[in-house]
Amino acid sequence: PRHRVKFANMMQKYILDNARVKIPVLVEVEANHGVHALGSTVFPTNLCIGSSFNPELYSEMMDTVGKEIELSANHIGFVTMLDVARDPRWGRTEELFSEDPYLISEFAKAGVEGFKKNNALICCKHYCAAGDCFGGMNTEEVNVGIRELHDIHLPPTEKAVKAGADIIMAAYNTVDGVPCHINSYLLRDVLRKQMGFKGITLSDGWAVPRVIEQMGQDPVTGAANVLKAGIDLSLADAGAYLKLEAAAEEGLADIKLIDESVTRILEKKCELGLFDNPYIKEDDSLSVFIESGIQKKLAYDMAAESVVLLKNNGILPIDTNKRVALIGEHAADIYYQLGDYTPFVDDQARAIKDVFKETLNLSGFTKGWSFTGDKEDFDNALRLCEGSDVIIVTIGGSTAKNNSNLTYDFNNGAAIKAKKFLDCGEGMDISDISLPGNQLELIEILKRTGKPIIALLIAGRPYDITRVSEIADAVLTAWYPGEEGGRALSDILTGKVNPSGKLSVSIPYAPTCLPAYYNRITSAQSSVSDDWVVNTYGDN
Amino acid sequence: PRHRVKFANMMQKYILDNARVKIPVLVEVEANHGVHALGSTVFPTNLCIGSSFNPELYSEMMDTVGKEIELSANHIGFVTMLDVARDPRWGRTEELFSEDPYLISEFAKAGVEGFKKNNALICCKHYCAAGDCFGGMNTEEVNVGIRELHDIHLPPTEKAVKAGADIIMAAYNTVDGVPCHINSYLLRDVLRKQMGFKGITLSDGWAVPRVIEQMGQDPVTGAANVLKAGIDLSLADAGAYLKLEAAAEEGLADIKLIDESVTRILEKKCELGLFDNPYIKEDDSLSVFIESGIQKKLAYDMAAESVVLLKNNGILPIDTNKRVALIGEHAADIYYQLGDYTPFVDDQARAIKDVFKETLNLSGFTKGWSFTGDKEDFDNALRLCEGSDVIIVTIGGSTAKNNSNLTYDFNNGAAIKAKKFLDCGEGMDISDISLPGNQLELIEILKRTGKPIIALLIAGRPYDITRVSEIADAVLTAWYPGEEGGRALSDILTGKVNPSGKLSVSIPYAPTCLPAYYNRITSAQSSVSDDWVVNTYGDN
Repeated sequence: PRHRVKFANMMQKYILDNARVKIPVLVEVEANHGVHALGSTVFPTNLCIGSSFNPELYSEMMDTVGKEIELSANHIGFVTMLDVARDPRWGRTEELFSEDPYLISEFAKAGVEGFKKNNALICCKHYCAAGDCFGGMNTEEVNVGIRELHDIHLPPTEKAVKAGADIIMAAYNTVDGVPCHINSYLLRDVLRKQMGFKGITLSDGWAVPRVIEQMGQDPVTGAANVLKAGIDLSLADAGAYLKLEAAAEEGLADIKLIDESVTRILEKKCELGLFDNPYIKEDDSLSVFIESGIQKKLAYDMAAESVVLLKNNGILPIDTNKRVALIGEHAADIYYQLGDYTPFVDDQARAIKDVFKETLNLSGFTKGWSFTGDKEDFDNALRLCEGSDVIIVTIGGSTAKNNSNLTYDFNNGAAIKAKKFLDCGEGMDISDISLPGNQLELIEILKRTGKPIIALLIAGRPYDITRVSEIADAVLTAWYPGEEGGRALSDILTGKVNPSGKLSVSIPYAPTCLPAYYNRITSAQSSVSDDWVVNTYGDN
Repeated sequence: PRHRVKFANMMQKYILDNARVKIPVLVEVEANHGVHALGSTVFPTNLCIGSSFNPELYSEMMDTVGKEIELSANHIGFVTMLDVARDPRWGRTEELFSEDPYLISEFAKAGVEGFKKNNALICCKHYCAAGDCFGGMNTEEVNVGIRELHDIHLPPTEKAVKAGADIIMAAYNTVDGVPCHINSYLLRDVLRKQMGFKGITLSDGWAVPRVIEQMGQDPVTGAANVLKAGIDLSLADAGAYLKLEAAAEEGLADIKLIDESVTRILEKKCELGLFDNPYIKEDDSLSVFIESGIQKKLAYDMAAESVVLLKNNGILPIDTNKRVALIGEHAADIYYQLGDYTPFVDDQARAIKDVFKETLNLSGFTKGWSFTGDKEDFDNALRLCEGSDVIIVTIGGSTAKNNSNLTYDFNNGAAIKAKKFLDCGEGMDISDISLPGNQLELIEILKRTGKPIIALLIAGRPYDITRVSEIADAVLTAWYPGEEGGRALSDILTGKVNPSGKLSVSIPYAPTCLPAYYNRITSAQSSVSDDWVVNTYGDN
């Protein structure tokens, strides 16, 4: 961690020594659920946090994230907190709190307020409606009307703005045909005029050159138009916004708009005090803070409050005299429980199986099912379960991008080569939310042993768990519970902690029952039961 | 048929003899694909017609429909022609031409122009966007924005209006939160002002009392508001619009609006000449017209032009020396090929098996698969196929509402009791577009005989035919080809007619690859292949 401060200071110094104008730079870091940096604590992902229904706890958590960024000599944390769940096929479902705009808004407000207790800037994303993408496919068209936009998608942004968000990041998608990056209605009329946002509007990475290309405009005209639509600052810009100089000279870009954007950025640098002192002292404040354990405790508390008990026929809490067979690849590897936007954490956290080994009367662990359909471990699993009193089996998907040798399109790429199975996270959208691999097949076999089965859903999105819910004696979902998830799950399974999480998203009855959200307007002619999400529709 | 005229004249006389004001009434009849009356010809449904890409032929067909209505002493034909395919789960997909607004518009224009060559009124439905209902569930919320509304959903209505549509029927659904029946933007701003519609706006059946209830308004206020929004005439009204008198007395309804609506209706009655002569001569004109065979010929031509050849590895045309095994319940019963809004036709048309018996070298017919999963006929089918040279097997769903003892919610009801399987048509939405029953299972078994397989899709919506397309040597879709469908299919199979139909809707790669339409806006960041409908997306 100490290198972070040194590195930030070096960058700052290089700029101030060499740039024509002596203006300090802003250093940004991803901070979706903890700071995305080596040594930082990995909190639960937002989908998990949403189940806590505890914005106050999230505020405390975000306070520590802001503090860590400040102590790191960084300036901006990028935090997904504006998206609304509409389609579980979307791989970024793990990054959002809920399908309910009010609940999301409360989290967004709490997150910004907590973060802003520190001298750092928060960038909230994405603006807007990214969760309503066509078929759950990341960045694809979003077809919503003005009413739905304002009822469903905009409230979280409004709350974040009112709570003091410094930066709002535009979303890659279109809204009703107009890309968010060239959408003056969203960027100027709604965000500036209606919501009163005074901070910086930031593009998503590469979005400005790409939207210019999509519009089929020459780079100079395109840059002028994006500025006019309302983007102040262009991220990973590939030279697009450098064309603004030419655009101003040619009279295409209004110099007043450039001044406004520059002023907003300078004001934020002023607020941070960067003009007074662009550097930070290279002492051990950051290390002391990280090693204090305050974040680890909050990561544990959040996970413990967020695990949702979906079914329990009495098998929980587990009698610690009972010998427990643990099955499922998720339990073997810490990365399966962390989600996307996660640093390497190898030494600082323990996988579920290593935690359970100490806290439960474990008869053994084996992977059992496989993500790819391989059945080579079925017999081992069956033998282990037959010799045990209770079976715990993990189910769900994987966002284990950090797990092993891996290549993927570094922005938004669905094309992945990895040693480990991946079906969730940014750019990993799926069409079929059936449980992957042969999870269900193994569970059907294990059921025949007559031993009670406890299913733990570890996932970044709702999957079809209808059949598992019928078979299993208990079902819990932890979503991605972060690096302290093992301890939290263990304490809930053994009864040390009473499970208090509540679902913040709908779980569809079947993979074809989509879209899945509770807050639609029922028709006056409705012939469909209100609880179609859990039964009716799937039976047709 | 002669009773129609007599009955219409009787109704007219009763009203004129007994009503306070001597104004002749308008008699309406459903006419989605032929007049919905005993003895009338059942043309292909619109989904089939769409594949012909031949609006001129549709215009001829609609000319005969208008003529039949005129000769029947009826006055209005209700015709579905404005809906756009967005989700194949919707049971009314069979009633629309395509997912392409331009193609639909051309059909709508041609249909209205053909119909209007006669002294009858055409009511075009539904206004609007009913095909974009939530999850493909009939009448449920439609979440589209203004851009998509005008680009995708409104063009067919505009073309129909410009072509001379007399009546436009409002749709049950909401559009971006506002029910179409209380939507003054759609009914007044767009339909009247932008499109210049001068005719009658008609509610869908029961929609006015229901929308009043949905709004939670008292009947008098509610009726006034529906009128104000722009509904002239209320269908199956249950007394709702009778409250307009009280609403006018209480000053809630503007008497000027009532006058406008009444004037529009009176004008149409004038146009028809009903004030000059409300009756029609009870001669044999109608019978002569129906028995002339002109409609039967058009029904054949339309079916023959609409069958789409999706695959042929050389087995087609069928060598008439080859002995053909015919499998599949659709072939046994004429009602499986007719679709919704169909009268009883028992004596006037022949099922596929009865046609093929005469035109092909049929070794036999047996149902083989069953809609309900029953395998009792599998062995018969296998034996028949083993003793034949070629296998023809029907696949698809069923809208056989007229088939047998049947009770269903008489408007829009999903609750169905029927002897026959039903999964399509109005109110019959499904979540899973896999081929129903054990069709695929039987085809996998028949494949092992090594005999060439020709699959005929008889259906009111796209189903997942990915696996069948791999297995079969030839695949054709006839959708619901109407009462002459058997002959048309036979002529195409034997090579007498060259198949010329083209798909007018996307067929999803898998039941989870929804929504499915080609005309979405691809994002600048798209990482998804353009041909996701046929492969990419389903592989994730």
